Amino acid sequence: MRVRNKPWAKDKLLEHSALVIPDPENYKGKWREKFNHSAPLHVEIGTGKGQFILGMAEQYPDINFIGIELEESIIVSALEKLLDKPLPNVLFLNKNANDLTDFFAENEVDELYLNFSDPWPKNRHEKRRLTYKSFLQNYRQVLKTKGKLNLKTDNRGFFEYSLESFSQFGLTLGNISLDLHASECPGNIMTEYEEKFSAKGQPIYRCEASF
Amino acid sequence: MRVRNKPWAKDKLLEHSALVIPDPENYKGKWREKFNHSAPLHVEIGTGKGQFILGMAEQYPDINFIGIELEESIIVSALEKLLDKPLPNVLFLNKNANDLTDFFAENEVDELYLNFSDPWPKNRHEKRRLTYKSFLQNYRQVLKTKGKLNLKTDNRGFFEYSLESFSQFGLTLGNISLDLHASECPGNIMTEYEEKFSAKGQPIYRCEASF
Repeated sequence: MRVRNKPWAKDKLLEHSALVIPDPENYKGKWREKFNHSAPLHVEIGTGKGQFILGMAEQYPDINFIGIELEESIIVSALEKLLDKPLPNVLFLNKNANDLTDFFAENEVDELYLNFSDPWPKNRHEKRRLTYKSFLQNYRQVLKTKGKLNLKTDNRGFFEYSLESFSQFGLTLGNISLDLHASECPGNIMTEYEEKFSAKGQPIYRCEASF
Repeated sequence: MRVRNKPWAKDKLLEHSALVIPDPENYKGKWREKFNHSAPLHVEIGTGKGQFILGMAEQYPDINFIGIELEESIIVSALEKLLDKPLPNVLFLNKNANDLTDFFAENEVDELYLNFSDPWPKNRHEKRRLTYKSFLQNYRQVLKTKGKLNLKTDNRGFFEYSLESFSQFGLTLGNISLDLHASECPGNIMTEYEEKFSAKGQPIYRCEASF
């Protein structure tokens, strides 16, 4: 995502530290208490401007959602949307997904979402892809047994790579779609990217991987 | 494939029983002796008019190939091509792939090919799809350990189904392409269907599944 620098973003995030948690390490293993609601916990990695996770949180009030986004100039847009339309079951982390296991205890997360992740198309950048095996190792650690990773992307190469990486890591694939919007997809919440790309008629790829 | 009935096909196949083997049960476990060449054995299920397997046999003289096709009016075209351009490393079976384990011993086959198989799109016909688990069970039986199934299709639904079926059966996916002809695919031999569909710009899906 092209990032327009917002020098005021940092302060705004700090100002709303009840929604954009600055010290998630302190809630590791205690997110259900933090939400004050013993519900399943779903985490989106690379939550962008938040349209997906906020839409999901509205659609599923009995699930707690945490969105992680590294770029403060982007996550501040998600924060603004949440301030406009408060929801009790969403929190944000302005953190690096590399540190996922610092934020969540073993078996704490029910489902993960990767939406339109950076494809890092060059071979030498394989290790940066969020579906590379070192990331899958972290996902396995924080996810419950048989926990699920949900992936959507418009990038063919990244999708091909991810399917192979999941399979070679021993995950079980399900709910594969090679053109999500070619047929009805009830309950699907679109990301900002997804709206833009599917409107152009480009296929959106989707799959689930069970750990 | 639409089948034009050829009443003379049956006789022609019988006439060339050295190439279209009428009693494959008798060679079970002995195909390498039959070929008189101790090479890897690759089998195509649904070999159609034979363009793929004959192209492969020409490209890989050190591999033995067997093509199985149920429809005598279709396999006769493959036979005619082979008669026009003889190759020592191809044989055909005018048989039903359901009976695969009657024709091949355990661990006898190195690789299998499924090219543009009938997608049987209706849910109630799932069991007829050549990537349904009962077929995978038979493939596992005849394939060597870590033997490989190679699949190509233009049918999106069938490909989605097959990826899930492979994964749920515990196979490992590799070499996935969601648009085979979008980039170079050196060594790829096109089937008759593939030529037709890819010329229209329709994507061809490919994957390998390791047992």
